[in-house]
Amino acid sequence: MEKFNTLFVELGDRSYPIFIGDGLLRSSELLLPHIHGKQILIVTNEIIEPLYLSTLVQSFSSFDVETLVLPDGEVHKNLEVLNTIFDSLLSKKFNRTTTLVALGGGVVGDITGFAAACYQRGVNFLQIPTTLLAQVDSSVGGKTAVNHKLGKNMIGAFYQPQCVLIDISLLSTLPDREFRSGLAEVIKYGLIADQDFFNWIENNISRLLARDSAALCSAIEKSCCNKAKIVARDEREDDLRAILNLGHTFGHAIETFHSYKGWLHGEAISVGMTMAAQLSSELGWIENNDFCRIRDLLISCNLPVSAPKEMRSKDFLDLMSVDKKVLDGNLRLVLLKSIGKAIVTSDVERDFLMKVL
Amino acid sequence: MEKFNTLFVELGDRSYPIFIGDGLLRSSELLLPHIHGKQILIVTNEIIEPLYLSTLVQSFSSFDVETLVLPDGEVHKNLEVLNTIFDSLLSKKFNRTTTLVALGGGVVGDITGFAAACYQRGVNFLQIPTTLLAQVDSSVGGKTAVNHKLGKNMIGAFYQPQCVLIDISLLSTLPDREFRSGLAEVIKYGLIADQDFFNWIENNISRLLARDSAALCSAIEKSCCNKAKIVARDEREDDLRAILNLGHTFGHAIETFHSYKGWLHGEAISVGMTMAAQLSSELGWIENNDFCRIRDLLISCNLPVSAPKEMRSKDFLDLMSVDKKVLDGNLRLVLLKSIGKAIVTSDVERDFLMKVL
Repeated sequence: MEKFNTLFVELGDRSYPIFIGDGLLRSSELLLPHIHGKQILIVTNEIIEPLYLSTLVQSFSSFDVETLVLPDGEVHKNLEVLNTIFDSLLSKKFNRTTTLVALGGGVVGDITGFAAACYQRGVNFLQIPTTLLAQVDSSVGGKTAVNHKLGKNMIGAFYQPQCVLIDISLLSTLPDREFRSGLAEVIKYGLIADQDFFNWIENNISRLLARDSAALCSAIEKSCCNKAKIVARDEREDDLRAILNLGHTFGHAIETFHSYKGWLHGEAISVGMTMAAQLSSELGWIENNDFCRIRDLLISCNLPVSAPKEMRSKDFLDLMSVDKKVLDGNLRLVLLKSIGKAIVTSDVERDFLMKVL
Repeated sequence: MEKFNTLFVELGDRSYPIFIGDGLLRSSELLLPHIHGKQILIVTNEIIEPLYLSTLVQSFSSFDVETLVLPDGEVHKNLEVLNTIFDSLLSKKFNRTTTLVALGGGVVGDITGFAAACYQRGVNFLQIPTTLLAQVDSSVGGKTAVNHKLGKNMIGAFYQPQCVLIDISLLSTLPDREFRSGLAEVIKYGLIADQDFFNWIENNISRLLARDSAALCSAIEKSCCNKAKIVARDEREDDLRAILNLGHTFGHAIETFHSYKGWLHGEAISVGMTMAAQLSSELGWIENNDFCRIRDLLISCNLPVSAPKEMRSKDFLDLMSVDKKVLDGNLRLVLLKSIGKAIVTSDVERDFLMKVL
């Protein structure tokens, strides 16, 4: 078996392991203890299918395995496509002991996880994230969802997988733009909770951009570890967990405005984080120098740091007002007190906000 | 305030009260402690709307109340109609502190509860069941769901309400056929877990059929109490809870065969319970005399006790094989060891089963 590290997400009887290593897709022995019935449905997308599906199917040779290939893209993360998973499960007469396996990026993970949460009121699922974004973000914390035309991730569940398998080698086929989009979330973990990690990313950004295996393993493990700590303290986002949404209120507005087309999630979040950092700087919470460090690091990843020209302040305000971070009409924003420390606040004066928008 | 009894469903931090009384719909003070935000969406159907909606809206005068009227009937308990609830919530920009209120029968309760489970990954909900069936069954235990064209309640969640308000007086407008359909579930609680209650129903069946208020209160309380005890011991139906499905494997097959049209749930369950009792008798588990008592009690409620002629054994077998009670290909049935004691078994020989089908 390949070398790997194991990280545990501590959530009582919903705790689960994350296996991180180079070449783990063939290591099905890691997955087998987490499959309880005979039936497995692997859900993937049209991009991943020709690359990795047959390898995974082979590791489940002793099971009754079915596969479902979804269209690629956030625009397909909706109730209609969700229903095709149920069609597939029911036409095969799959029962309550079925295991769903998500082989793909965030879209496949989110929709498959939500299908697992709902099918017969809950079946097991495993995640094998194939993008950097999904490896550091969607695979930890049990947030599953589909989009509604009026808002992103508005229909979903908190539902934990039985385990997550992160194979760094799958990133070799990831397009550059998607890879950089994932780096935005890696940087986020430094920003919100771990100044040392942020410094490390600054110092190792060229190794990361070159997809150096050891650097990637470290960055992914550190990201997952930071997220797992936060989720363990606040699984259902009553409070602390909201800091994981740094840049997301602005970012979701950008994605919704463009109907999830044209912008990658990490790109929208990169702009959102820049806006949040700028607002934090305007408020005098962080130094202008820190704002510049954040923006420069994102720029060095070739990530966008300015809001799209076609969006006006009013577009942001309208779209942000349906964000899940809104409570009883008060817009709550995640802002920075320093690099490595984020807080949730609803005390931002409109003038400051408008300056950034 | 009207006189009422309170029953607690004990589920740790998901525990909730059921208020049972005559004329409680106007007693909004019972509900208020269970509403945490300002926004309320009342979901009801086209039958209930003209009868009770305005009364309920008035009791929430200090809130931001919206209403949504769904088409009536099991055939509308699907993902498309579920999505109209999300449309309504999102177009009003309702947030995570929203409370959904289900005012209606089992369909409204199931779909509204599932909407509450999924909207922004979970918001609060209250149930005000308006049919006898919903009062004794859907309001206890947190099973929420919608149907799929290939199977009933296949997409759903275990999700508990904040409280349930059962107003007996709402039954005065319930059509006779629906009322009798509800009695099938009342009888089920006697059969599976409470011989004394079964005897009491036999002795009081004419008072119940005359909708005597005191008799109804007793029957509903006893039914809820029996169900609450079972659910408290097995919330997610790993084991014991499956006995609540007495008659349901056969019954769901009947409902699915007819695409949820023409048969009321309680009518299908009445046939299903008769088939389960007959099979239990064929197996020598209960006396033929007990089988006759069960069938006679159902007949005295004018409920059907024979499978529809247009269904063949093969239809039952095909449809029963996708039932949630099937585990790894083994059909599990709920049968009777005596009146007042049900068990789940997968040890029924095909010959015995075919005799009944």
